[in-house]
Amino acid sequence: MAGLLKRALRLRTALRCLCDYNMLSRSTATLSPVDFHSPFLTCSSEQVLASTRKLHAGADGSKVSPSAAPERLPFCRVTEEDLAFFRKILAGRTIVDPDLVEPSNVDWLKSVRGSSEVLLRPQTTEEVSQILSYCNSRNLAVNPQGGNTGLVGGSVPVYDEIILSTSLMNKILNFDSISGVLTCQAGCVLENLSFYLEERDYIMPLDLGAKGSCQIGGNVATNAGGLRLLRYGSLHGTVLGLELVLADGQVLDCLSTLRKDNTGYDLKQLFIGSEGTLGVITAVSILCPRKPKSVNVVFLGCETFEQLLKTFQLCKGMLGEILSAFEFLDSECMRLLNTHLKLPNPISDCPFYIVIETSGSDPTHDAQKLHNFLEEAMTSSLVSDGTVATEEAKIKALWSLRERVTEALTHDGFTYKYDISLPVEQIYQLVTDMRKHLGNRAKSVVGYGHVGDGNLHLNVTSPSKDPALLAAIEPFVYEWTASCRGSISAEHGLGLKKRNYIYYSKQSQAVALMGNIKAMLDPKGILNPYKTLPDNLKQ
Amino acid sequence: MAGLLKRALRLRTALRCLCDYNMLSRSTATLSPVDFHSPFLTCSSEQVLASTRKLHAGADGSKVSPSAAPERLPFCRVTEEDLAFFRKILAGRTIVDPDLVEPSNVDWLKSVRGSSEVLLRPQTTEEVSQILSYCNSRNLAVNPQGGNTGLVGGSVPVYDEIILSTSLMNKILNFDSISGVLTCQAGCVLENLSFYLEERDYIMPLDLGAKGSCQIGGNVATNAGGLRLLRYGSLHGTVLGLELVLADGQVLDCLSTLRKDNTGYDLKQLFIGSEGTLGVITAVSILCPRKPKSVNVVFLGCETFEQLLKTFQLCKGMLGEILSAFEFLDSECMRLLNTHLKLPNPISDCPFYIVIETSGSDPTHDAQKLHNFLEEAMTSSLVSDGTVATEEAKIKALWSLRERVTEALTHDGFTYKYDISLPVEQIYQLVTDMRKHLGNRAKSVVGYGHVGDGNLHLNVTSPSKDPALLAAIEPFVYEWTASCRGSISAEHGLGLKKRNYIYYSKQSQAVALMGNIKAMLDPKGILNPYKTLPDNLKQ
Repeated sequence: MAGLLKRALRLRTALRCLCDYNMLSRSTATLSPVDFHSPFLTCSSEQVLASTRKLHAGADGSKVSPSAAPERLPFCRVTEEDLAFFRKILAGRTIVDPDLVEPSNVDWLKSVRGSSEVLLRPQTTEEVSQILSYCNSRNLAVNPQGGNTGLVGGSVPVYDEIILSTSLMNKILNFDSISGVLTCQAGCVLENLSFYLEERDYIMPLDLGAKGSCQIGGNVATNAGGLRLLRYGSLHGTVLGLELVLADGQVLDCLSTLRKDNTGYDLKQLFIGSEGTLGVITAVSILCPRKPKSVNVVFLGCETFEQLLKTFQLCKGMLGEILSAFEFLDSECMRLLNTHLKLPNPISDCPFYIVIETSGSDPTHDAQKLHNFLEEAMTSSLVSDGTVATEEAKIKALWSLRERVTEALTHDGFTYKYDISLPVEQIYQLVTDMRKHLGNRAKSVVGYGHVGDGNLHLNVTSPSKDPALLAAIEPFVYEWTASCRGSISAEHGLGLKKRNYIYYSKQSQAVALMGNIKAMLDPKGILNPYKTLPDNLKQ
Repeated sequence: MAGLLKRALRLRTALRCLCDYNMLSRSTATLSPVDFHSPFLTCSSEQVLASTRKLHAGADGSKVSPSAAPERLPFCRVTEEDLAFFRKILAGRTIVDPDLVEPSNVDWLKSVRGSSEVLLRPQTTEEVSQILSYCNSRNLAVNPQGGNTGLVGGSVPVYDEIILSTSLMNKILNFDSISGVLTCQAGCVLENLSFYLEERDYIMPLDLGAKGSCQIGGNVATNAGGLRLLRYGSLHGTVLGLELVLADGQVLDCLSTLRKDNTGYDLKQLFIGSEGTLGVITAVSILCPRKPKSVNVVFLGCETFEQLLKTFQLCKGMLGEILSAFEFLDSECMRLLNTHLKLPNPISDCPFYIVIETSGSDPTHDAQKLHNFLEEAMTSSLVSDGTVATEEAKIKALWSLRERVTEALTHDGFTYKYDISLPVEQIYQLVTDMRKHLGNRAKSVVGYGHVGDGNLHLNVTSPSKDPALLAAIEPFVYEWTASCRGSISAEHGLGLKKRNYIYYSKQSQAVALMGNIKAMLDPKGILNPYKTLPDNLKQ
């Protein structure tokens, strides 16, 4: 009991600390409102469990939502013998100090928290293999963790799963400057890979706001989309090879660096986007594009969403192969940027704003294409105002209007976040309908995202957590999305929070088949349990 | 016996006809030397089987090679009751006339032939579902067939498998001109889709020599590469959705048209490149690029392969986003084009030739980029001669030098074909080493292919089929490839002919996992048996 109390006090301290420290290195990020209650004072482990569950369910004790954690599955608990084994293979990298484990127990949004007591930091594939082989034989659950920047509670433990961090697996293994193929360990931070490549005249085919913390292994495990997908396509196309450790410790070597290989089934594809539930990615090979010699960014204003779509069409035709991003935000986003971050609107007020990026190999040609496009867009009154940036500082400033919307939202109140894919013509209708549907129950309802990919980020804020508001949003948002055959998670994945909503976007036969695949690859279900697949599937 | 004799005579007639008729609509294609013996005269069904096996093994009775068909598996044989069932659901589309079935029993290269007696031509997914549900319950093997243009014996039956042709499933279901997403049935011929899209200012993201016959379902089932992969990436990236019928008749609806969807495992990926062994693709949705406004083709000559690679590097840097193909052929290919097809060399004689294609949105910009690149390539003596085409007729003529190499080879003698992926620096070394290795045992040893993708087509000819030559080529070619971690089948797949070579490119654990996936999705193994997976796996 003394031990438990000590641990609870430490946890409380850690929680307080969390409010001050920025888990991510996103330079401008601030923390979202912390919704923590501290249930860890002098209670039995059963009480801790119940409280943790309550936390997941909603600390106010409202009825258990489909996002809430299911009951703990009957995995074994970590014993002293287990720790002794881990210490033998990971001397100095088996972390049990609660203060040190805590950051890995909590997600970036501070919306989900596990109660793991062990954080393992392997450096090699062989170590990962030994860990999983042991855990599988002992029936110990494992939470694979990269940069812990996920938004759906997939990257942290739900209960006492052992955290297997890839952070020390951060070696670049090879870069072929003729083919542009990079091979590296899973724990390499995306931004570090970008720096490495830029020195060699290449870039990563993906870019995310969380690049300063997120790791390539986590990117692949969650099939991260981001800002360059429009140009370079998804990771299903750019990832050429993966090395994986399966639940039983077996190393699956699919680490090809070839662009083409049709010898049997493309197994690696199964693991891209499987959120660590089928295997632990230990190394990645990825095809990288040449670094563009010229980058331009344009910020435009439109009066209607229809005009915005017409601008997108025009843009695809006139900018063609140099178009590298077509993003949007609405006037509500601009209001939040002005209010909370004091970012001024660089053009006149409009209902919709577009960020267009071009990147190409010839600055003169790119400028001319952009000029022709802008002239046409202005002449035909598709856009009402705009500004162009060619210098890095101004480019950054314009991009920040799009990239810092998430941050502005965290200052507006408690945020309900939805990451929806829809046929591009319909993406803003959902925002309009949601506003009508919620009336004055919400503080703000904003829409922004990747028009080029048909990906809307719909966010609803309220002064504080509001179960009644949530009940008004869900399942409305999911039903609306399903009625258009959209996806209820375009790029964030399902993790813990959205696992039970899968049926809104996937046919039951498909989900059942996913369950069979999980059962085949991880029969004991030790890998990232409670995530991705819905509770009604036997895991 | 009388029935068998009648059938044998019909087959003999059909075989004679085959020599005159062109199964493919490749406009310029001629048939490869036919290696047929007719084993079907007045013999028992066991004798037919034994003879068929011999055909697969090598008609000369040489020792059974790993390419030869394994023993027939104990599937049921089609009965009159079965035919009655098929006729009920496919009135007029259940083909049993041997003359009509025969073309579907033989592959395009005429290197493999099955002895199926039933060809089914469904028009709808529901019909495919009914067929498979029935065949699965009856334990009848099924050979799904698209345009039958495969090169590894994957598209025809090995024994008496029922042929399920998708040829009548040729409807375009939808095209979204804003997103560029095309949705169509699996039996749409690639060239027809291209024509349809070009009228709407879009193109297909893939292009193949066999486009006049191959079907999109078959393209996806074999993960076809082709000429546009360098620019638009593989089908794993461009295919957005698939509708499939599983072995038991269950319809798996993954026919999303969204660019992004991270709700659960991306099941469709498993079926891309699975060669019809895991399910029958009935519909496809695919992301199509805008039709380029300007296309240029350059034909260049290089003195060494090293210079050719340097030209590739220069090209990637200077042509950047408009580069859409970088192909090569060697002087031996040119000799065969001159000799057999009377195609003249448009430039002076060189050891290596390059075909570069650019496509972009601005003809002036593209021409200027090309001009700058050519000037630099000439000045730095990377290329010794060259010619440029901007008009369609000349573009076609230059492309035909690359595209008609296969055809020229068929006139040179019996051809041993290898489709190898290698690190790009090494792709020609294999040709050089093979020439040295074979000495004067081969008539010609030629290399051509997709430099941009690291994909070499290595072809060896001899006056006639030559088991001793084959024994000198294999396993040499596979061992050489494996020693560089290359792929023994870059884009053609494994089918029947290469299934047992899979271990040269895939780790045994990976192959075992493929076997588990097959067993999970098709427990009775009725779908395209004897293909893709090696014989030592229980199928």
